[in-house]
Amino acid sequence: MKYVIGVDLGGTNLKVALLDLKGSIREKVSVLTKEGKQAVLRQIIDTVEGLRGKSGVKKSAILGLGMGTPGLVDSTRGIVRGFTNVKGWRNVALKEYIEKNMELPAYIDNDVNLMALGELLCGAGRGMKNMVCLTLGTGVGGGIIIQGELYRGSTMSAGELGHIPVNVDGPPCGCGSYGCLERYVGNASIVDKAVKAIEGGRRSLIKKLSGGDLTTITPRTISRAARQGDRLAQEIWEETGRYIGIALSGVVNLLNPEMIVIGGGVARAGQILFEPIRRTVKERALCIPAAKVKIVPAKLGEDAGLIGAGMLVKVARSNPRSYNHRRGS
Amino acid sequence: MKYVIGVDLGGTNLKVALLDLKGSIREKVSVLTKEGKQAVLRQIIDTVEGLRGKSGVKKSAILGLGMGTPGLVDSTRGIVRGFTNVKGWRNVALKEYIEKNMELPAYIDNDVNLMALGELLCGAGRGMKNMVCLTLGTGVGGGIIIQGELYRGSTMSAGELGHIPVNVDGPPCGCGSYGCLERYVGNASIVDKAVKAIEGGRRSLIKKLSGGDLTTITPRTISRAARQGDRLAQEIWEETGRYIGIALSGVVNLLNPEMIVIGGGVARAGQILFEPIRRTVKERALCIPAAKVKIVPAKLGEDAGLIGAGMLVKVARSNPRSYNHRRGS
Repeated sequence: MKYVIGVDLGGTNLKVALLDLKGSIREKVSVLTKEGKQAVLRQIIDTVEGLRGKSGVKKSAILGLGMGTPGLVDSTRGIVRGFTNVKGWRNVALKEYIEKNMELPAYIDNDVNLMALGELLCGAGRGMKNMVCLTLGTGVGGGIIIQGELYRGSTMSAGELGHIPVNVDGPPCGCGSYGCLERYVGNASIVDKAVKAIEGGRRSLIKKLSGGDLTTITPRTISRAARQGDRLAQEIWEETGRYIGIALSGVVNLLNPEMIVIGGGVARAGQILFEPIRRTVKERALCIPAAKVKIVPAKLGEDAGLIGAGMLVKVARSNPRSYNHRRGS
Repeated sequence: MKYVIGVDLGGTNLKVALLDLKGSIREKVSVLTKEGKQAVLRQIIDTVEGLRGKSGVKKSAILGLGMGTPGLVDSTRGIVRGFTNVKGWRNVALKEYIEKNMELPAYIDNDVNLMALGELLCGAGRGMKNMVCLTLGTGVGGGIIIQGELYRGSTMSAGELGHIPVNVDGPPCGCGSYGCLERYVGNASIVDKAVKAIEGGRRSLIKKLSGGDLTTITPRTISRAARQGDRLAQEIWEETGRYIGIALSGVVNLLNPEMIVIGGGVARAGQILFEPIRRTVKERALCIPAAKVKIVPAKLGEDAGLIGAGMLVKVARSNPRSYNHRRGS
């Protein structure tokens, strides 16, 4: 029996899993990410070796290690350009480091791309050829699948769905532009709408659920209030869904995908968010692509990136040139 | 010496060319498109045969015929779904008709896709892998090249750049949505801005160039006025470029193309339009993809579609499954 290792290296958590070749997780561990580049590099090796030792699986049964990190990744050369939350991280040849220190073929990609790959191969998108994956959270991002493969663009930075402009003269976005989708549907904006309305005197269950401390409000608080029939919360999800739907209608007209998979924390709001998204896309996108596209929640939840990282090993082995994979290694 | 035939079937003109395998036009003819489906089908055959006869090239030296038509085309099956300007045209098996009546392998695609293919193989986009082609005119459309091939999407309708929303609560668009790019930069909107300003008392050279009859104003009139220093005309191109640049910044963030090629009548405005487009993309798109993308005018002008149609024969022969091409035919 053969296995792969998946690593999801985030600014907060480092997650490692041992998976079979179908993407089922056999063993999994999550630890807090250490501080500083050297400590993090060492931690990756130690955590992977710890998990493998615990599992009793021999090194010779492991085909390779796939890893996702935030930000810009050169997946062909295996270099992670930058990593906001880790000091001193700049153009780290992560692939080379892992291969030298672990004697395992390693493959690196952007974490959102790997979520898309996970959903494509093992989740909501099985069998799809052209698919877009949207992730909703503090940041809004995405991954694009074209002809059954990850599409990365010409500088490996494709898929930035959060920075599609939806209002030419909209509010300034952190990226330097104006009226980007993220500016309307990122966590901060969703919470901000609730806080401003309550501060403006609007009565809402959200206030009660936050224990009166508005600084503790999260999108989850607003979801809970909405489920209990709170009008303000319902309006916030309706508006959030409308903005996502409008941006996605542009994506549908441009890329004509079979499926759009939506994941990330905010997507847990469920039907109250998906209903206005689907309705808006049907109303606004061109008939034929709108009738075709299925808009569905991600299936793999928080493990999507980890599973995608494991599956990257399989994909890279069958596509050696794109991942600098030496056949036979 | 081998040749291909390119056909550009428009609602107004039917253009036919005999090309060599490098895409150089040897002979070319343009006639007014007849009325009614049967008449048009017959006209295609007659015009192609007429041109071939005149050229003296034997049928055996012709590898095949490629043809572009407006609207939705099923390029795999060679069926043209609809054709707004030709009565009775509904799901016409154009590939089959040509192959039966001309004994030549035939390949059909959407005309804007073929412009993109022409620019990719013989024009501004030579050697590009990921490229977007935007066409500006009465309608605003586009074609997408991914990994050096035309990308059509899951129902052959990808590339509708004119229907990317740029203002969520913008004016209604003919497509049923609101605030689409076409609604701001299509011919009608550009002309409308000039007419409204002049009717509102604004002094402008545009009025003089139109001979006082505002109904004769076209984007070309506004280009001429701008070149002569007219302020209103310059403002109109600045605003048009800004809107195009904002929509393209979304496309750049999403698809991270190496190049965007802009063609169609309106693109003839030249530098006065391209300067604000490029500036806006630099200001608004994410740094890395913005630094990479080249935004250039189309090179092949009105022949782009015709050349792309001819080149489609070459592409289809090397990719037989996508075009229902029987090897050996």
